[in-house]
Parts: sequence; structure tokens; C-alpha cells
Amino acid sequence: MNVLLIYAHPEPRSLNGALRDFAVSHLQAAGHQVNVSDLYAMHWKAVLDTADAPGYTADERFNPAVESQRTFAAGIQPPDIEAEQAKLLWADAVVFQFPLWWFSMPAILKGWIERVYAHGFAYGVGEHSESHWGDRYGQGTLAGKRAMLVVTMGGWESHYSGRGVNGGLDDLLFPIQHGVLFYPGFTVLAPFPIYKTHKVDAKRFEQICSSYAARLDGLFTAQPLPFRTQNDGDYEIPALTLRPDLAPGRHDLGIHLSVEAVPPK
Amino acid sequence: MNVLLIYAHPEPRSLNGALRDFAVSHLQAAGHQVNVSDLYAMHWKAVLDTADAPGYTADERFNPAVESQRTFAAGIQPPDIEAEQAKLLWADAVVFQFPLWWFSMPAILKGWIERVYAHGFAYGVGEHSESHWGDRYGQGTLAGKRAMLVVTMGGWESHYSGRGVNGGLDDLLFPIQHGVLFYPGFTVLAPFPIYKTHKVDAKRFEQICSSYAARLDGLFTAQPLPFRTQNDGDYEIPALTLRPDLAPGRHDLGIHLSVEAVPPK
Repeated sequence: MNVLLIYAHPEPRSLNGALRDFAVSHLQAAGHQVNVSDLYAMHWKAVLDTADAPGYTADERFNPAVESQRTFAAGIQPPDIEAEQAKLLWADAVVFQFPLWWFSMPAILKGWIERVYAHGFAYGVGEHSESHWGDRYGQGTLAGKRAMLVVTMGGWESHYSGRGVNGGLDDLLFPIQHGVLFYPGFTVLAPFPIYKTHKVDAKRFEQICSSYAARLDGLFTAQPLPFRTQNDGDYEIPALTLRPDLAPGRHDLGIHLSVEAVPPK
Repeated sequence: MNVLLIYAHPEPRSLNGALRDFAVSHLQAAGHQVNVSDLYAMHWKAVLDTADAPGYTADERFNPAVESQRTFAAGIQPPDIEAEQAKLLWADAVVFQFPLWWFSMPAILKGWIERVYAHGFAYGVGEHSESHWGDRYGQGTLAGKRAMLVVTMGGWESHYSGRGVNGGLDDLLFPIQHGVLFYPGFTVLAPFPIYKTHKVDAKRFEQICSSYAARLDGLFTAQPLPFRTQNDGDYEIPALTLRPDLAPGRHDLGIHLSVEAVPPK
């Protein structure tokens, strides 16, 4: 199968760099085709601006969504954006690997999402009306492809547990796993978190690689996170609120899973 | 008082631009000193990399936290970073205004956080041991200052309600409000969200400004979000998990508020 690794860390001689190399080797040894977007090495342009909209003139008001729709439809997007979209279309699975900086992805990766996720590609897909609010959350351009986050953190696992001071990792990652991955159609696998990155010696690195190998081996077979699809009846349209009889009375992020996959810690 | 507006939108002739201008005028009319960091206009460098670490040489492994600590302590950070830190120290309140792009802040603002929030300034402050895990979450360099998010969204309020398909806005903003603002010490006010930004006519703009004015008038008096402080007994150290008798059995993000400020929608 085709696996794309989107990788955002400034230092190849880091734990992240070592894990990237391990993943590439392991996937290739399993017979997969692997492509890596190494955002720092590519000097990826992180900021979405008017330079991304060929043909835009400064006498109009710059609306990023409108310009994205226009340039995507006309096939005149900047080549770096087109190249990443082609990689996404090529991939059967995408692994996003990054250090958790300020409880989210590094800016360079956020900017990759903002620029590559064009209107007509990742959003603004399908009918938009009061009875169908777009092909998204389970439908969309990237439907049928799998995605997984690989996230490194300096803190301890308990700090990111369901009662940890930082907030539970699943909740912290919800805007990414649900809002960035599930939204344009990806089937989302449970994340692969690596804690206490300051204290990784050779023995622990081996353990991490062994766990990571198992996760990579399950890329196409593991049970995904059971996010509820938008357009199959669980949500009332156009309010897009969860039906009152589902997870009644609750308003936490866990209600967007059709079953609680992992027992709360 | 001194108010800093951190503003991240590429188009001054947008709703965001109009709201920025309104806020500046309104705050000045109320007698406040106002400073604006207009990140797009400043061509803010979004990507944290080795160029941010004067004296770093490529024969060492680049560790962003280590280099940040070194350059901050030595007073040799890049001038653009130092200038923003000085603005933060000057401010009594900081308003962060941005469009919600892919359920988080734009990359240019995320990169502002990553670069300005230096080790020794926004993290790595205070004793770090098994009995005191840093001056953070209620303590830190920015303690005593207030912060508020002003966030524009294309979607409807119901889509971001507690049972909305996108996830509840408070939960989506938790990594920012708790992880970026409360962490280095800010007192965090409830956000000011603006929905359905595609449909803002003159009448609705006036209504939005009227609500925004009330929020700005309460910047120094409104009741903040009651996030639990890390170092006053609610969390067990060093596991940093919430004491079992507080919000017992729960593991949603709401447990990090000492009282549920707003009834769930």
C-alpha cells in the first residue's frame, strides 16, 4: 500500500528524526511504498496569504476561502500545494508525526493544513444546503484513507490522562483527529503517543520502536476511532447537533464517538 | 490600563479588520493605552527554527527548548521575539483575535506563541521537582494579566454548541485557553465568539460591536473562567491528576474548572 508520512520537526538527529527513519524502514520492509513530506527540510511556507492566490489583485478584498475555491477549481494553485494534494490522493494511509508544542501541532504543520486543505478539496465538498451540510465528517475527498497521529511530549502520561492537569490527550487532539482528519473523510486510528521524551535511552527507544512497529503493522487492519458520521442520522440537520436520544444529557467531546472505545483513565 | 491586541488575519478590509479597528477605538475612548501586533502586516516569522537561536552551531543537535532557555537567559534572542515579550510584560490585558481555521488558531499565530513563549519566560519557570512542577497553570510570568480570545467562525452557533458536530467551542478552545493562556499565568476571560461570518450585514455588525463593546468594558472586571490552579492542592503532584474527590469519576475537560461557569447547552 502507499503510505505518506507528514513530518514536522526541525532536527533530524532528534527522537522524532529517529522515529521517522524507523517508520520508513519498517513500512518499506513490510512492502509498502513510502513517501515523506519533511516540512522543515522542505522549508514549507507556513503562512497562508495572498501569494497563494495567483490572479488575486489587491483591489479586491482577500477572502482565503473564496480564493482557494477559485484557484483549486481553475487548477492554478501554487505548485507546492498541488504536490501535497497529489501525495494525499496517492496515499492509502497518512501518518502525521510531530512534537506536541503548546498542546497542538507545530505552526509549520498547521500551515500545511491551511494551505493544502483547499476549498473543493478538503472542505466545501458536496451539496451545502439546509438538508445536507457538505460531504464531511465521514465523507469527502479523503474517504477510504486511513490516518494516524504520532505525537511526542515531554510530560508524563498521567499529566495527559483523563484527569491530568493538561487535559486528556484524546480531548486535546480532538480538534486535529476529528476536525482535521475525520472532517475531509479520513478513517482515524488511535494516536501513538510518546511521553517523557527527555528520558529516552537506548532501551526505551527499542521499546518505543517495538510498540510503534505494532501500530504500523496494524495501519490497515486496526479498528479505527468510532467517530459518528455527520450524514447518517446521528446529527439533526441543519443545526448539526447530536440527536437528544444519543448520549443523552452529555456535552463532552466523547459524545462524538458511537462507542467509548477506550475505558476512561 | 495597557491593552495588547494580538491580531491574525490577512485582510484589513475583512470583518476581522473591522472588529480590530472597532476594538482599538473603543478601548482608546475608554482611556486605555492600546498596542496592536498585526501579525500579517508585520510579516511575522511563523516557523520556529535554528535561525531563532543565535550562537547555535549545526554540529550540535538542535533542541528548541534548550536553545530557547540559553538565548532567553543570555538576552540574545532575536529582536522580534524580544519585542513581543516586552509588549506582553507591558500589557495589563491581552486580546487574541483570529478566525478559527481548522478548529484552531492560524499558523502565523501558532508560530507567534511558539517563538515568543520562551523557556524561562512562558515555561520552565519556577522550581521543577517531584514536589513542585513549575510555576504554571495559575502562576508564572504573566500572572495578574488578563487574556481573552475573540474568534470568528463561518459555522453556526449550534454547530459549536455542547452537542454540536464540531465539538463544543469551550472544548475546542481548551488547548488555547488553558494550555496557552492559563499555563503561563494569564487570568482567562470567557471567549467572544462570532458565528456565521459570511452573513454579517450592517445591522448585524452593529449588534456584534455592541456586544463586543460590553466585553471590552468588562476586560478588567468580568468574572474569569474558574480554571483550577495547579499548585494549590487540587492536583496530586507529581502525577498531576485531579484529586479523586473533585469531580469524581469524570474525565471531561470541564473537570478543570472549579465551578461550571456556564450551564451546558
